[in-house]
Amino acid sequence: MADLTTRFPSNPLLSPSEVAPSTPEVSVECLLNPGVFRYDGATYLIVRVAERPVQEPGKLSFPIMNDGQMQILSFDLDDPLLNNDDPREPSYDGEVYLSTLSHLRLFKSVDGRKFEDLGHSIFGEGELENYGIEDCRVASMPDGEYILSYTATSKYGYGVGCKATFDWLTFDDYGMILPPANKDCAIFEDAIDGSYVCLHRPSGVGLGGHYIWLAWSDNLYDWGRHTCIAKSRPGMWDSQRIGAGAAPIRTDRGWLAIYHGADHDYRYCLGALLLDLDDPSQVLARSEEPIMEPIETYEKEGFFGNVVFTNGHTVDGDTITLYYGASDTVICGATLSISEILDSLNL
Amino acid sequence: MADLTTRFPSNPLLSPSEVAPSTPEVSVECLLNPGVFRYDGATYLIVRVAERPVQEPGKLSFPIMNDGQMQILSFDLDDPLLNNDDPREPSYDGEVYLSTLSHLRLFKSVDGRKFEDLGHSIFGEGELENYGIEDCRVASMPDGEYILSYTATSKYGYGVGCKATFDWLTFDDYGMILPPANKDCAIFEDAIDGSYVCLHRPSGVGLGGHYIWLAWSDNLYDWGRHTCIAKSRPGMWDSQRIGAGAAPIRTDRGWLAIYHGADHDYRYCLGALLLDLDDPSQVLARSEEPIMEPIETYEKEGFFGNVVFTNGHTVDGDTITLYYGASDTVICGATLSISEILDSLNL
Repeated sequence: MADLTTRFPSNPLLSPSEVAPSTPEVSVECLLNPGVFRYDGATYLIVRVAERPVQEPGKLSFPIMNDGQMQILSFDLDDPLLNNDDPREPSYDGEVYLSTLSHLRLFKSVDGRKFEDLGHSIFGEGELENYGIEDCRVASMPDGEYILSYTATSKYGYGVGCKATFDWLTFDDYGMILPPANKDCAIFEDAIDGSYVCLHRPSGVGLGGHYIWLAWSDNLYDWGRHTCIAKSRPGMWDSQRIGAGAAPIRTDRGWLAIYHGADHDYRYCLGALLLDLDDPSQVLARSEEPIMEPIETYEKEGFFGNVVFTNGHTVDGDTITLYYGASDTVICGATLSISEILDSLNL
Repeated sequence: MADLTTRFPSNPLLSPSEVAPSTPEVSVECLLNPGVFRYDGATYLIVRVAERPVQEPGKLSFPIMNDGQMQILSFDLDDPLLNNDDPREPSYDGEVYLSTLSHLRLFKSVDGRKFEDLGHSIFGEGELENYGIEDCRVASMPDGEYILSYTATSKYGYGVGCKATFDWLTFDDYGMILPPANKDCAIFEDAIDGSYVCLHRPSGVGLGGHYIWLAWSDNLYDWGRHTCIAKSRPGMWDSQRIGAGAAPIRTDRGWLAIYHGADHDYRYCLGALLLDLDDPSQVLARSEEPIMEPIETYEKEGFFGNVVFTNGHTVDGDTITLYYGASDTVICGATLSISEILDSLNL
């Protein structure tokens, strides 16, 4: 067992039953994978809230966004055009949908432990976000700007959307910055060599896989100079797929990037990459063993069990306070020591 | 039958047996999908040449690029780590390879019909092109620069590489401009609203498919503002996948983009999209029927039969001279009338 974390005794911090649905027609099925930022002294989570219509007998219903409004699509279960073989991705007449619709919702805490639902939600906008928005990373930039990178889903596939804000009231929209199939985009919290930098996770079919790539941008709209920095590793805990967590943490030894990896049983653990400070496409070290594994009952059982997944944290000195989704169902917290993670990398 | 083309009587123009391999260890298996440009009054094809080692009994051999040199990997057919279930993508110890290695080679013609092998080849460079480079589009820019966009293949997947040149002797390298899984990138031959524009074809798994997208760039390195402009159409000739051909042609009615579409039998035809001149993400019209279908024997039989695929043409007044790969084996030519294509779109 490899686990360097100290979990909050109060885990889970947030559960679906405690959160109000955005309309009475739907229920909150899962809370997932929060982005994290500090603003005006408080800690905020931007949680992915996955909702599903209350199901009627003999019917299958799922929600989409339509012109800024949630719309419920409902089909008879015996309709021959309906295919529900994969309950997470039902299809009708050849068009694939998602069974739940996710939006992002803000929760606030003064102590980083007890979070209050602010009732402030961000929904998908436009054709490329009609199936919802998911798993938002927040990069807190030196000038006070917050850059949000999240998974934008629609019938066109899933890519990475980007918005930026200073005040969380008005947002600049940078559109889809990485086309399908892409997710897990973490933007570095400082420019390197005058450019924005991000980690991202394109998915290939046949050649290639689910690997971590790095890209550069001069204007936040357009990204290029793509390189693959880490592959999944056959026979190891991260053999099937990997993807970046939150923005890498600057340390004296390099950029510390916490990432998730899954094996072929889809058991999700966390590990660490250490990237060169000047050229973060150079990997200096990588966890042989996970730094966090699904151990607790709430991490092993749920909508999708055996999952710890993070895309948000705060840092105070040597301490990382990690917020994470457990079993794709509840939101939890844990602390880690930066020096202990670096020690585990056998530098 | 829908076909608006007049094929060259001399088709095929180029066949594998007529082309010398790049080293004696390999044979030329296929000639595919040429980019086309004019330089100094002549017409040039930049042909994808796919090579394979001469196979020995009891062995399977395939080539990769290694530090700028072709290297032959050879395995015993009864080696349990070798998997040859898909003969185009053999794998060894879990790593997927390609059975052939492609490079780009220049052919020259004074009349656009009879082409001479210049023996000038461009090979993949660097880790992201170790499995070869394929299907090069050439955008001839107003200032005399030629921009090459091509499929870069490696164990990391297939993405889009980009180089630019004025003289075909020295090249500027723009790196991987679109990460996996992406190909069929056609850059417009003029700036729009001050930016470079391209069509590209990301591939999704699950949600999404093999659709044509459009992106913008200010510097040729970095691309963003991605939007999907055309999907495959269930039940039609382009039901399974679509992808852009060469650079769209400016007409009075809009940008005319010839594209390929395949049905679920992987029969590849060509069709046309008409895009708004000022905002090419707006599709004004699209072919209901193909403008070219695989009809001739050389288009129906070969390494991969029932394929016509284009990514290069020249334009003289109303006449498009289209160069295309037939059956993934030989290079052919045909002419089309721009006005006839526009008429077929029922504007």
